[in-house]
Amino acid sequence: MAVATQSLEELCINSIRFLAIDAVEKAKSGHPGLPMGAAPMAFVLWDRFMRYNPKNPKWFNRDRFVLSAGHGSMLQYALLHLTGFDSVSIEDIKQFRQWESKTPGHPENFMTEGVEVTTGPLGQGIANAVGLAMAEAHLAAKFNKPDAKIVDHYTYVILGDGCNMEGISGEACSFAGHLGLGKLIALYDDNHISIDGSTDVAFTEDVSKRFEAYGWHVLHVEDGNKDLDAIEKAIAEAKEVTDKPTMIKVTTTIGYGSPNKANTAGIHGSALGGDEVTLTRNNLEWTYEPFVVPEDAKNHMGKAVERGANYEAEWNKTFGDYKAKYAEEAALFERFISGKLPDGWDKVLPTYTPEDKGIPTRKHSENCLNKLAKVLPELIGGSADLTHSNLTEIKGIGDFQKGHYENPNIHFGVREHAMGAICNGIALHQSGLIPYGATFLIFTDYMRAAIRLSALSQAGSIWVMTHDSIGQGEDGPTHQPIETLASLRAIPNLIVIRPADGNESSGAYKVAVEKSKQNAPTLLAFTRQNVPNLAGTSIEGVTKGAYTVVDSEGTPELILIGTGSELSLCVTAAEKLTSEGKKVRVVSMPSWELFEAQDAAYKESILPKAVTKRVSVEAAASFGWHKYVGMEGDCVSIDRFGASAPGGVCLEKFGFSVENVLATAKKVLG
Amino acid sequence: MAVATQSLEELCINSIRFLAIDAVEKAKSGHPGLPMGAAPMAFVLWDRFMRYNPKNPKWFNRDRFVLSAGHGSMLQYALLHLTGFDSVSIEDIKQFRQWESKTPGHPENFMTEGVEVTTGPLGQGIANAVGLAMAEAHLAAKFNKPDAKIVDHYTYVILGDGCNMEGISGEACSFAGHLGLGKLIALYDDNHISIDGSTDVAFTEDVSKRFEAYGWHVLHVEDGNKDLDAIEKAIAEAKEVTDKPTMIKVTTTIGYGSPNKANTAGIHGSALGGDEVTLTRNNLEWTYEPFVVPEDAKNHMGKAVERGANYEAEWNKTFGDYKAKYAEEAALFERFISGKLPDGWDKVLPTYTPEDKGIPTRKHSENCLNKLAKVLPELIGGSADLTHSNLTEIKGIGDFQKGHYENPNIHFGVREHAMGAICNGIALHQSGLIPYGATFLIFTDYMRAAIRLSALSQAGSIWVMTHDSIGQGEDGPTHQPIETLASLRAIPNLIVIRPADGNESSGAYKVAVEKSKQNAPTLLAFTRQNVPNLAGTSIEGVTKGAYTVVDSEGTPELILIGTGSELSLCVTAAEKLTSEGKKVRVVSMPSWELFEAQDAAYKESILPKAVTKRVSVEAAASFGWHKYVGMEGDCVSIDRFGASAPGGVCLEKFGFSVENVLATAKKVLG
Repeated sequence: MAVATQSLEELCINSIRFLAIDAVEKAKSGHPGLPMGAAPMAFVLWDRFMRYNPKNPKWFNRDRFVLSAGHGSMLQYALLHLTGFDSVSIEDIKQFRQWESKTPGHPENFMTEGVEVTTGPLGQGIANAVGLAMAEAHLAAKFNKPDAKIVDHYTYVILGDGCNMEGISGEACSFAGHLGLGKLIALYDDNHISIDGSTDVAFTEDVSKRFEAYGWHVLHVEDGNKDLDAIEKAIAEAKEVTDKPTMIKVTTTIGYGSPNKANTAGIHGSALGGDEVTLTRNNLEWTYEPFVVPEDAKNHMGKAVERGANYEAEWNKTFGDYKAKYAEEAALFERFISGKLPDGWDKVLPTYTPEDKGIPTRKHSENCLNKLAKVLPELIGGSADLTHSNLTEIKGIGDFQKGHYENPNIHFGVREHAMGAICNGIALHQSGLIPYGATFLIFTDYMRAAIRLSALSQAGSIWVMTHDSIGQGEDGPTHQPIETLASLRAIPNLIVIRPADGNESSGAYKVAVEKSKQNAPTLLAFTRQNVPNLAGTSIEGVTKGAYTVVDSEGTPELILIGTGSELSLCVTAAEKLTSEGKKVRVVSMPSWELFEAQDAAYKESILPKAVTKRVSVEAAASFGWHKYVGMEGDCVSIDRFGASAPGGVCLEKFGFSVENVLATAKKVLG
Repeated sequence: MAVATQSLEELCINSIRFLAIDAVEKAKSGHPGLPMGAAPMAFVLWDRFMRYNPKNPKWFNRDRFVLSAGHGSMLQYALLHLTGFDSVSIEDIKQFRQWESKTPGHPENFMTEGVEVTTGPLGQGIANAVGLAMAEAHLAAKFNKPDAKIVDHYTYVILGDGCNMEGISGEACSFAGHLGLGKLIALYDDNHISIDGSTDVAFTEDVSKRFEAYGWHVLHVEDGNKDLDAIEKAIAEAKEVTDKPTMIKVTTTIGYGSPNKANTAGIHGSALGGDEVTLTRNNLEWTYEPFVVPEDAKNHMGKAVERGANYEAEWNKTFGDYKAKYAEEAALFERFISGKLPDGWDKVLPTYTPEDKGIPTRKHSENCLNKLAKVLPELIGGSADLTHSNLTEIKGIGDFQKGHYENPNIHFGVREHAMGAICNGIALHQSGLIPYGATFLIFTDYMRAAIRLSALSQAGSIWVMTHDSIGQGEDGPTHQPIETLASLRAIPNLIVIRPADGNESSGAYKVAVEKSKQNAPTLLAFTRQNVPNLAGTSIEGVTKGAYTVVDSEGTPELILIGTGSELSLCVTAAEKLTSEGKKVRVVSMPSWELFEAQDAAYKESILPKAVTKRVSVEAAASFGWHKYVGMEGDCVSIDRFGASAPGGVCLEKFGFSVENVLATAKKVLG
């Protein structure tokens, strides 16, 4: 029974707090401080503003919520539970941070319905949210009609001091300000505490002023612990500002309610401990047992179910009207959100013969992108300020800018990391959009955390990476990838493809688009320099990861395995060796991951165990190649940093020549 | 002969411009736009303010200069050449961007004397500069006396729009503002153009206001093309502001002087072309042949040589006086800048026997750091807001803060990427400091570009990474490294060490400290969880990279190779197998790179080619391990993302148990 002194709102807010306290206490692991301090703002947001349908978490037009401060995951689980999502039962909350539970340590969209994106690595969530808001703006501009708004939702974020310290959040928020994303609203849990203690030790900048400098509308709620009306007023004002994103600084007390640990780092990332839990219960006059939610709170917050059903019903009616009036647009919209590709889309991908002029694979990439854009209007993306080097522009159509959100060409600026997380946000909007982000392959280092999260959180982003080797040339070792391919191949669930020519570039896009619709990212590595079109390459071959492009008569005595720009060296070397009476097979291996996914029989057919004399040829580190060349094989590779010189000179000097492939092959043949 | 209409200053500035124009033109590659626009500010800085000695580029008390916009490298080469550095002759400039030249595409400190840090990857330079300024502040606070300032220099940076868009620069500048680094002065080349065109397409924030929010002193030079006095006045004012770093926004025209390409992206990263070079010569009334510098300009800028000799002589006198009065401090200072370690420093590293209690290796790391700090006052570093998780605090001594720069404990805030580049800057201050930066191993993803640059640019940073596997536990897959070790081992010149216990942790620090003094970085990976101290482990063993800790009688039939927390599983499994009559060797392999550096005989002695039955055991991806286990071996590894659950549960569920090692070993034995 509710204590008389507590208002209904307090009851709800304390329910959130104690679910967090009790779950962390039971797990003896987790972060109670943020949920305790941010519960009031979260309550106001979820209770008075947010539109979502607990019984259909995937309802398209829902407001998106991102807990960028993902360590406070219990805040989100408590909200999901109290508002009636079936994905988080009280039993699930009791299993907080346990094996296979629905309530992992940080919010994981692939584990828990109602969680939009995976957060925890700080700053990713706010950047994802920029992507979610861009997806909404894009679809709204594309589909809405003056008399029918079928795309119309807000994106809300709660972020903390940690997110605000991370560079990625600065990149993303600068970009959001540039774009004027009016439906993006960020609540900054300004609690002055990070893991090392007071933010005074490292973070004394004026965050509000910084956001103003980015072009955001900035508000301040001075008492975020108690002043619910001020929170409500701020969010209402934020919604009214349609030409700028809004940042609401909400000053709170971390671990609010804990007599001895509130406002200390001690409550940031540790359970309170039994005594302090008791003291906190006393202090907040909380008479309920652990994991018990008072009926009044349950009933009140549970009203989200009915509200949500109504929201969805209204929207269904709006969409019905839209469909009646705008059948063609509605059909496209329905295809988008179904995640399906149009029939025969891949027929536009070009194929080539050796007679076709050799061009850089980045140019093939440009051709593929532009041909695909004609049949796949869900493509949206661009480059981190290297548009005309990466060749990622979709021609004849404009840029995604404020007032022109309908266009697909995004200029991300020199913001690789934010680009990555924004693409992930667009993908996880789950509206069928296929986002792509581009830079030089080496600069995946700047966005690696976002690439990893695309693989973990099942975001179908396409990473278009050009200048994929020392063939990059004059820019020198700071710009030349060496270990980069290996470091990316090592990431679980990420498909890396390094095509050798035009056919393989088409194959790379075929895979990337299909994988995107299966919620998996693909990374494509393209050359800066010209490569010839080769006999035997194929789209089909790429889909298998590795395949034979030149074969010997009978069992080969040597297999040359090439990727990308080095495949042609293998082909030429094989001709020479064959003319000398050797039995040589050339395997093109654009993708290790796709090859590993084939059955054992296929793998054996391409790389028979009995053939142990193998040479890999790739203008990159040998790291990882021994899996395929074994201990009797060898690698034509570069295991040092590159150098500044014309690309052809670099390749030659570092041994990527037919001569050196032949020499290595002969050494292996013995 | 100088054209009558040109002042001496103009002659010098145009000399810089045309060296850049001509070098890029000859190379048909490079970025002329920035040098043409930034030449005036660079001239004023190098001619009227900067203290350096061209004939002794390593003179300790020189002002440091960083071209953060490293693509404009010809600006720096022109300055080095004109001011009389022997490292950049006119022949070197003619070899711009050619094989093995002293003038690579981007400034590389390891190629060109006078270049302090390696730039090109945007944002790194400004963050390095923060590190350089921190090193100066630290040494000044440590060594200077009221009557003798032996450490007293400024750090100057030129950065562009690209640097300012990158998150790392935001992190670093926020931190510099927090620290109040008064001797850091950044000139922002505000030319409104990036590679994609006008910055209007992506970057419309108010940069000055952002820097004010960071706590910087901010100035604006409205006409950076012509108003040299305004530039001079601004730099002079910046020097006077001693409690804040200063950012001077200098508005310029990219490609100044080119009639058709100035103020366009066309001049950002491409040669002007012969016709436009001619038009630019005409426009700027430049009558000199390519690569010809007018005598007046040469003579004027060459005065830097005499000035520099005087600066150094003055300083030598100051230091002589200091040495006479403060012999002990002077001896320490001299040891610092000699790069030498004190005799017997490594004797403080503890050793252990199996009877010693098992603790996490991160705790061993803490012990090592604290013991080393007693004998190596050059240690300086800290964590990116995980001090009490990484255990990197040097106890009994304070924090590096404004007013307390003499202290070694840095709170970097949640700014991993800036931390990386700052540590590199501290290392490249070349004053013997040993910087270390810490976070969870997984978050090397956030700072990978800086880690790579530590390896490329020969910065002796120590990367202290904890929570090195799924043993991390409840935080879940966002926080659990899987592919991380592989991705780091793949980086050339980076030593990665994953110690198994106390002795190996001591060995790891022994290597890391020695490598730091040899200008090479080391990355250390420590466990969150307890590990036992094992028989047979040793400091000496670690230095070899891999060594035998348990051996069989006679030739082994199986080799178990373990690292870190999994070595103990190998030892226990070997005991069991031995009791069953098998001949089993256990190899501890804390560092692949150190092992690869051993001679063939040593390698054969540890991993004899004849023993093909091998099993690696490491709680990480198998990626790369086939080099050591071959095609007949196997890996106990995890090739998927982790999961949120207690660390012990994760390890057990994913197969890191003695049982599974035994099962795998038996499968391999056949």
